[in-house]
Amino acid sequence: MAFSEFRPLDESSLIEYIKAVPSLSEKLGNKFHDIKIKEVGDGNLNFVYIVVGSSGSFVIKQALPYIRCIGESWPMTKERAYFEAVALRKHGQLCPNHVPDVYHFDRTMSLIGMRYLEPPHIILRKGLIAGIEYPLLADHVSEYMAKTLFGTSLLCNSTTVHKASVAEFCGNVELCRLTEQVVFSDPYKVSEYNRWTSPHLDHDAEAIREDNILKAEIAELKTMFIERTQALVHGDLHTGSIMVTQESTQVIDPEFAFYGPMGFDIGAFLGNLMLAFFSQDGHAVEGNDRKAYKEWILRTIEETWNLFHKKFVALWEQKKEEGPGEAYLPGIYNNSEVVQLVQSKYLSQLLHDSLGFGAAKMIRRIVGVAHVEDFESISDPTKRAACERPALELAKLLLKERRNFKSISQLISAIRQIQ
Amino acid sequence: MAFSEFRPLDESSLIEYIKAVPSLSEKLGNKFHDIKIKEVGDGNLNFVYIVVGSSGSFVIKQALPYIRCIGESWPMTKERAYFEAVALRKHGQLCPNHVPDVYHFDRTMSLIGMRYLEPPHIILRKGLIAGIEYPLLADHVSEYMAKTLFGTSLLCNSTTVHKASVAEFCGNVELCRLTEQVVFSDPYKVSEYNRWTSPHLDHDAEAIREDNILKAEIAELKTMFIERTQALVHGDLHTGSIMVTQESTQVIDPEFAFYGPMGFDIGAFLGNLMLAFFSQDGHAVEGNDRKAYKEWILRTIEETWNLFHKKFVALWEQKKEEGPGEAYLPGIYNNSEVVQLVQSKYLSQLLHDSLGFGAAKMIRRIVGVAHVEDFESISDPTKRAACERPALELAKLLLKERRNFKSISQLISAIRQIQ
Repeated sequence: MAFSEFRPLDESSLIEYIKAVPSLSEKLGNKFHDIKIKEVGDGNLNFVYIVVGSSGSFVIKQALPYIRCIGESWPMTKERAYFEAVALRKHGQLCPNHVPDVYHFDRTMSLIGMRYLEPPHIILRKGLIAGIEYPLLADHVSEYMAKTLFGTSLLCNSTTVHKASVAEFCGNVELCRLTEQVVFSDPYKVSEYNRWTSPHLDHDAEAIREDNILKAEIAELKTMFIERTQALVHGDLHTGSIMVTQESTQVIDPEFAFYGPMGFDIGAFLGNLMLAFFSQDGHAVEGNDRKAYKEWILRTIEETWNLFHKKFVALWEQKKEEGPGEAYLPGIYNNSEVVQLVQSKYLSQLLHDSLGFGAAKMIRRIVGVAHVEDFESISDPTKRAACERPALELAKLLLKERRNFKSISQLISAIRQIQ
Repeated sequence: MAFSEFRPLDESSLIEYIKAVPSLSEKLGNKFHDIKIKEVGDGNLNFVYIVVGSSGSFVIKQALPYIRCIGESWPMTKERAYFEAVALRKHGQLCPNHVPDVYHFDRTMSLIGMRYLEPPHIILRKGLIAGIEYPLLADHVSEYMAKTLFGTSLLCNSTTVHKASVAEFCGNVELCRLTEQVVFSDPYKVSEYNRWTSPHLDHDAEAIREDNILKAEIAELKTMFIERTQALVHGDLHTGSIMVTQESTQVIDPEFAFYGPMGFDIGAFLGNLMLAFFSQDGHAVEGNDRKAYKEWILRTIEETWNLFHKKFVALWEQKKEEGPGEAYLPGIYNNSEVVQLVQSKYLSQLLHDSLGFGAAKMIRRIVGVAHVEDFESISDPTKRAACERPALELAKLLLKERRNFKSISQLISAIRQIQ
């Protein structure tokens, strides 16, 4: 270890650090004369350095004790790097195809060394704004979600294993509190942090703050978010936490990881695809009306859920043979009828949770503190508001009516109807 | 501290121990010549000594590393005493009127020194079997449940406080696993531990093991039991964990305490009152048909819920003034209509959970490993089975139909109808 106490790195101290850490310097073939370092942290929270040498490469991610995009005025524990590293490793074991390798973790320095996702990997959100189709996206993300969520739940593990891990991730409470505030609280009250396309959406934002039914629904989801230790969720699975090429899909940045409801991850992904969908009209240009692309997004939403459903049930069936988790013992769930019944109840509940959390994520991105580039990159505010409003309307509908959705195709119909 | 490592005490080593512990010997006015020690552990798990001197008294409870009633063949961590002591102190702070004082705790020895609940305190279950009315019972138990459950929930606390305590009680996992097995698993499958009044209830026990709908319901409750960290529950709040006189009600033995669903405690109490109700015909004798007593039990069930509801909502209202918990921020829940809406949803959900868990506790006491004296003391098996069967029928109905119950009076009607 290079340093005995925390210190924020810059490009020159980073080189010193790398030289002192064998697992990193070996990645570069111990050749340092030609390495190139680039700071690329475009996220909200951390510093990220790409380190490339002639013999290898990696990424160094360092958490600082505040939120980068706001500054030292919003402190945030750097211990989040520890939980990110533990989650990356756990999810990586369960789904190595879609989680980058961790080469090195230094808790004192809140620093992770991990695989550099080389070009042409880009952030999925940027691909969606550019109108690029990713034919394997639904397949890959559904695999990631099914394997990580199933594999860290009581469908797979004993209560003993489960509770030990739950206890550990209770330590990531500061990040959970941030989500509680920005997703489940601020958008529903007057807050200095809220913003929206104004004056266009002034009434829409106000309507949300005055909608008692909506506020009762968000309370249930917030409580479920805090109380329900269903699985080790990524905790921030939007389209900015996924890097893609045509062949590869890699999930990054699980620093918000904790034991929470599975629907929070599934909803984050689906909700952000819905935001991408509604933003497309704002990106239409002559010769590219984005109509076909919108259809691809809808297919991806539908396929993601359907493939997730299939893979999740397959893992459940497979696990029965291997020795199951605590939740459904084969001595009790011992005939195909009861197995089908409990699986169908479980997945139906999960769809409802996912729609609810997805809706909450949509609302907060339109009237809360942190917005998405899908909409922000539409420079004409009238055009932007015209994209945002139907997204908001859909989200409100989903929050209130999610329990009536029997299948994902009903969601697709609802999206079509509202646009 | 008297001993540097764990050692099971007997009456003579207990005296040595007391002499070495100031907080205990002071309770006896440091007079040891006239003290009387009586071992009274009639529970399933621990050794309990009553220590009475001329100047004072206390109880010493020591956990051994196995389940007392089964023996060393069923090991069980003695660390449960630690969780019992923490829960007694926490619940005692929140509701000092109904939780005995803890004078001393020794983690190494798994030993608690606490208030001796002097005669005429008896175990409530014995009072119910004897047909004794306790006019303050509903008032006292509802106060205990409202204060301890509200006070350890997100209605009262920040997420930071909540998750720290959740993490700690994840350590009591062995006791949770015991509950999972005996309440939520064994009764629904073939298990060497199950027993029932045979052959009378052979078909009834089999029907439970073959009821797919019932097994789907118990799966949901089991998962909620493990996953949902709603409040620090007692974890074993049956009528054997409550000591009573006409004026006093004291809740003891929270060694199963953990962060779980509130309905598990409420259901345990109500479910055991229902067992007491259905056992009464077995205790009827000439000149005392127990009819009036059954009515008192029904009134107590109804009042317990209604008083709990009232006190819980009052705590919620009061807490709003003082600075609320994380779940319902006043900036969002800012008009009386929305407050009423969320409170009514919360309590309605809680009633359903309570009925479900209550039903699960009834079933396990009739076809599972550990039975209740209410029925066991009916020596004629035909008579006993005739009491047990309607209790089982009601429990099955509640498990399946609990979501249709809008008020506690519906429960009372269902009980009357089935008996």
